[in-house]
Amino acid sequence: MSPEEFRRIGKVVVDWIADYRAGIESFPVRSQVRPGEVRAKLPEHPPERGEDFEQVLRDLDEVLLPGVTHWQHPGFFAYFPANSSGPSVLGDLLSSGLGVQGMVWATSPACTELETVVLDWLVELLGLPEHFRTDAVGGGVIQDSASSAVLVACLAALQRTGEEVARRGITRRHVLYASAHTHSSLERAARLSGVGADNVRVVDTDPDTLAMDPRHLDELISADVEAGAVPTMVCATIGTTSTTAIDPVPEVGEVCRRHGVWLHVDAAYAGVAAVCPELRWINDGVAEHADSYCTNPHKWLLTNFDCSALWLADRAPMIEALSVLPEYLRDEATESGEVIDYRDWQVPLGRRFRALKLWSVVRWFGAEGLREHIRHTVALAQEFAGWVRRDPDFELLEPHPFSLVCFRPRYPDLPVEEANERTHRVMDALNDSGDLHLTHTKVDGRTLLRLAIGSPATERRHVEQAWARIRQAV
Amino acid sequence: MSPEEFRRIGKVVVDWIADYRAGIESFPVRSQVRPGEVRAKLPEHPPERGEDFEQVLRDLDEVLLPGVTHWQHPGFFAYFPANSSGPSVLGDLLSSGLGVQGMVWATSPACTELETVVLDWLVELLGLPEHFRTDAVGGGVIQDSASSAVLVACLAALQRTGEEVARRGITRRHVLYASAHTHSSLERAARLSGVGADNVRVVDTDPDTLAMDPRHLDELISADVEAGAVPTMVCATIGTTSTTAIDPVPEVGEVCRRHGVWLHVDAAYAGVAAVCPELRWINDGVAEHADSYCTNPHKWLLTNFDCSALWLADRAPMIEALSVLPEYLRDEATESGEVIDYRDWQVPLGRRFRALKLWSVVRWFGAEGLREHIRHTVALAQEFAGWVRRDPDFELLEPHPFSLVCFRPRYPDLPVEEANERTHRVMDALNDSGDLHLTHTKVDGRTLLRLAIGSPATERRHVEQAWARIRQAV
Ligand SMILES: Cc1ncc(COP(=O)(O)O)c(C=O)c1O
Ligand SMILES: Cc1ncc(COP(=O)(O)O)c(C=O)c1O
Repeated sequence: MSPEEFRRIGKVVVDWIADYRAGIESFPVRSQVRPGEVRAKLPEHPPERGEDFEQVLRDLDEVLLPGVTHWQHPGFFAYFPANSSGPSVLGDLLSSGLGVQGMVWATSPACTELETVVLDWLVELLGLPEHFRTDAVGGGVIQDSASSAVLVACLAALQRTGEEVARRGITRRHVLYASAHTHSSLERAARLSGVGADNVRVVDTDPDTLAMDPRHLDELISADVEAGAVPTMVCATIGTTSTTAIDPVPEVGEVCRRHGVWLHVDAAYAGVAAVCPELRWINDGVAEHADSYCTNPHKWLLTNFDCSALWLADRAPMIEALSVLPEYLRDEATESGEVIDYRDWQVPLGRRFRALKLWSVVRWFGAEGLREHIRHTVALAQEFAGWVRRDPDFELLEPHPFSLVCFRPRYPDLPVEEANERTHRVMDALNDSGDLHLTHTKVDGRTLLRLAIGSPATERRHVEQAWARIRQAV
Repeated sequence: MSPEEFRRIGKVVVDWIADYRAGIESFPVRSQVRPGEVRAKLPEHPPERGEDFEQVLRDLDEVLLPGVTHWQHPGFFAYFPANSSGPSVLGDLLSSGLGVQGMVWATSPACTELETVVLDWLVELLGLPEHFRTDAVGGGVIQDSASSAVLVACLAALQRTGEEVARRGITRRHVLYASAHTHSSLERAARLSGVGADNVRVVDTDPDTLAMDPRHLDELISADVEAGAVPTMVCATIGTTSTTAIDPVPEVGEVCRRHGVWLHVDAAYAGVAAVCPELRWINDGVAEHADSYCTNPHKWLLTNFDCSALWLADRAPMIEALSVLPEYLRDEATESGEVIDYRDWQVPLGRRFRALKLWSVVRWFGAEGLREHIRHTVALAQEFAGWVRRDPDFELLEPHPFSLVCFRPRYPDLPVEEANERTHRVMDALNDSGDLHLTHTKVDGRTLLRLAIGSPATERRHVEQAWARIRQAV
């Protein structure tokens, strides 16, 4: 495809996306296809001769779109949002268009330096501690996901135990600590790093707030030390996946400090809310205690996947754990130690110019625009929560400080199993309707519906409609 | 950014990329900036108010481009190519525009099913074994990189040893086998998985072909078994990073089979050459012996990063190693077992719709166009090698079956250290000139220059110019 063909077809694709976004409400939010339905419509064999791009777009419309769940639909309230905004999509397009590799500084210095600058900006925007900036011993890096971020944190934590895990492998029992509400990526980090899922301790949570109990954490760590194991990392969550519960980072951090255990703070979804001063309390304890901290602009900060921001208070143990320097990657800049080589900060070697999309987002929206987005979505969620609270047919889970609201229909005469079953049926009916998309969680044996607001396309009327449809379905 | 603003600005960005590609030869291939130079020109603080996208593009031109190494430049011969083509960029743009998550089938069925189909197409295009298709117990998946692919393979291999590593953690000494020419990602997999870098055995290579010696491998494995360790995985490479050497997969595979050790075949760069029937011999032994196999369309098959294809002969141990199913991700389709959830096939949880770009590439070029691209770049490299071979001032490393040529100036009167030093100076001078970009490697203590051809923009005249410049610099 010559530059001139790219110019022509690229504009057709831009139009396609603009039309898609403009008309997105015409689609059922959740795809209604059955397993195998899309596959059956695709050719079994690859084409021998090249085809026009117009044919690709036609098949996208006819074959693929029915199999797409529309995450950018204003009626998408499932999981957590996966924001995507115009400037982000265009920043990402520039990254693809440049097609550079940022594995080390020398392979494209701007790719590394813009990333450092934008992550320093984010430290300022979110009110995170100065020592997360890359000037001194800490630093920030874009990961593909919060899952990879917690794995990298775990590897750094293993290294810091002094057991030389990267070199000698796991030779003792290392233990990670989490609550029942910690994201499953922590258990995956245990599986991937050789720690093992059995060595993840589940710390009790407060039955009301669902927050981690620091006293129980303390007891568990002490018992493990006594038993000869190596307490390695605690994962505290700011905004759990189920219900956006908040672990008490100051108290958990105190326990970690006392025992010399690495504290990773997972604020994948909620962390970006700290762009708003009135929500900055969620960072309590992070400055004093977090060895690593992660939040995802690709969830709620208008940046399309993949863009997860990870900061370390001290980058040295991570680099020790991950750095391997073969001859074909040696260069002057790396040898001089003057530069950052982000290859040593992540699982993959290669890396795209992901900073471009985050840079585009921050510049297009400005601090002001980012705050507005968070405030708008939080306000909608609070309004929705108010409707649920006032309706005697529903039960609301408190608190709900962000843009996720958990609730369930009341079935006062039904045993819990049956009530759960009914709640599931309500959710399925709503999802099948195509008007909105919700997911569920379970707390204390009870099934709750989760309504997460986050799409920039979602207006008040969409939330009103959702509420009307939910009441009707119940 | 409204759809209409996106429509307008998106076209400006498309024009920017078309102009960039059309004028790419006007840039020095390798960025000439000093460490910190780009950063110093970027604002220290994020903007309070939003800015126009035009300002972003202006800064891209003025501040960032001088810090960019132009991987798509026809004079880029460094590392391995990181191909990017128009259809790929546009496929990726569609992925960003849709903004869907493909972590499980249900979150966007088309995202999963297209990936399955396109990877099955690739099995056919590359003449890989039928059992890599996702119909039966095997299957293919797009990873971000070959580094993540070898990590996933290693985790599956650990699981298959029956030691229940995912659950219990590493409790015995596991050993991985590689040669001195295996990519550093294998050592990283050892560090990341808890196996430990010390437990990577370096198998001897043939001094002429630089290929792994299967007899030595056999001895090492036997010795490890005797010592009570668990031989876990062998990594054989088709096309090493240094020199594109090829390990003897049939013989290495025989050894693996005899000892029940997992064989991972890393064909990150060279594997895609098998689109050409005349190069399909590189797959020898893969059908019979490979437990996992990886090749990167993002290197030499016209697909922009990230797109690394990984296949498994049996996906079960990988899924056992990686699968964690929390309540908030439970859904009917997953419970039914009728669908694939690619979340269990990779390190991160979230995933973008990466199949779109590979699909766009295969459809735009067709099998014919893909073969043409490989043939064209291989032919250019062979022609270049011929010039080197015939020039008494140069020494050529044989063989060079793909599009990488390794060579060095002859300095008959200099001791090896000084010759190496001079070769480095030649390379630095060439890279500083901005006309072309080469990297180096070291074989047997001797520094070699690497010239890798792969950009669709590279024509015969660029290779001729490169050769003229190299002779001049020497
Ligand atoms: C608290 C928390 N941590 C981690 C993750 C994983 O995010 P990712 O998809 O970026 O790995 C999630 C995703 O919902 C989350 O809510
Ligand atoms: C043989 C081989 N394996 C693995 C890799 C790593 O590739 P990636 O950047 O996709 O991790 C490379 C990169 O050059 C390679 O040449």
